[in-house]
Amino acid sequence: MISPNICVGTDRYAMFKAGPVLSVSHGMGVPSMAIMLHELLKLLYHARCSGVSIIRIGTSGGIGLEPGTVVLTQQAVDATFQPQFEQMILGKRVVRGTDLDAQLVRELMQCSADLDEFPTVVGNTMCTLDFYEGQSRLDGAICCFTEQDKQEYLQAAHAAGVRNIEMESSVLAAMCSACSLPAAVVCVTYLDRLQGDQIRSPHEVLAEYEQRPQRLVCHFIKKSLRGPEAPATRR
Amino acid sequence: MISPNICVGTDRYAMFKAGPVLSVSHGMGVPSMAIMLHELLKLLYHARCSGVSIIRIGTSGGIGLEPGTVVLTQQAVDATFQPQFEQMILGKRVVRGTDLDAQLVRELMQCSADLDEFPTVVGNTMCTLDFYEGQSRLDGAICCFTEQDKQEYLQAAHAAGVRNIEMESSVLAAMCSACSLPAAVVCVTYLDRLQGDQIRSPHEVLAEYEQRPQRLVCHFIKKSLRGPEAPATRR
Repeated sequence: MISPNICVGTDRYAMFKAGPVLSVSHGMGVPSMAIMLHELLKLLYHARCSGVSIIRIGTSGGIGLEPGTVVLTQQAVDATFQPQFEQMILGKRVVRGTDLDAQLVRELMQCSADLDEFPTVVGNTMCTLDFYEGQSRLDGAICCFTEQDKQEYLQAAHAAGVRNIEMESSVLAAMCSACSLPAAVVCVTYLDRLQGDQIRSPHEVLAEYEQRPQRLVCHFIKKSLRGPEAPATRR
Repeated sequence: MISPNICVGTDRYAMFKAGPVLSVSHGMGVPSMAIMLHELLKLLYHARCSGVSIIRIGTSGGIGLEPGTVVLTQQAVDATFQPQFEQMILGKRVVRGTDLDAQLVRELMQCSADLDEFPTVVGNTMCTLDFYEGQSRLDGAICCFTEQDKQEYLQAAHAAGVRNIEMESSVLAAMCSACSLPAAVVCVTYLDRLQGDQIRSPHEVLAEYEQRPQRLVCHFIKKSLRGPEAPATRR
């Protein structure tokens, strides 16, 4: 039984509950994700939930990958490719680690092998505060660098193990790690940023790409709910 | 004639056009505002618009002000109270100024005097990337400081001329300034952060507060559309 949207009248933080699974839209960018996580973590605490895992699913720009590839994030890195999240608290810079759960990554990789529907890789994910200049795009309203500068930066990112770029992973990793909650990030790539800045695939292709992280994580959830012994007992 | 919402099916970047006025929701936080501004500025350029002013209206936390006070931003400052916006471009820190338009502030202050409906002040606005730890709130899921630390920080902000805190002003100021577009930020305060972190006013009071920046900016728009000579010619 899936409950209707718990937050009617807006798609900000639209929330659905299906059995033990809570699905929440987190909006775009680190601040939006951080607000949602603070409030969700308080809710989980007061509801006395235990054994919680948190998985972000979404879309991203790829680096050196075929569009449609799903990236399971090994480390969420900043714009200098370091696995850290910097925030300002009381006017001082505070840096937190962005460790994600290695076991969750292994299990999700196994789920992708089970499904065998689309390419999936494990790689680092760069999290930025801006979609245009911050992701070295040349097609924003403001751009002060060249195609060559951009290529050098993206190649350096690739050499540092970065396989995709998005805008929420580092704060998710930092906050879940600070709260000792296993977390994962599963994003499909819409384009290869080494080839350009504009998404060229038709809408229906992108719509299918967008479903890939959902299909992967749905399979993971079903498998987890069956429990590790279930397949054996059904033999 | 007001056109219907140009982006049906979502309230992300809901956009309405009424005559020469475009109204767009920008979402929460610097990244969401930045994406909207990049795309809006490109749209205005391709539509060959001229004489454009950009005004953000919204809500905020006040410092040392009666809740319901409207703040016209003099300078958008960062968490160290400096009038600057730092962003990462190609992995390097780039700092941009956050000048807002002094003439717009004067005209908006005059509009508030015309209306004489609610208190309005000119002050600095601190823009943060986080609502909880970043705004020295004690009621987030994670908090590593004391009430005293918070009070000292907010008092230091007040001494630096900060009268309210929100999450979008600095990138708006930096981008509009970089594009030589006059911009203003008009936010009502929902609470006095020196008194607490939780909003205590009833919903209907907050709903009325929320309308104050809208009423002020609507008056400004009507006055601007009449032109500076219109009141004299009607005498």
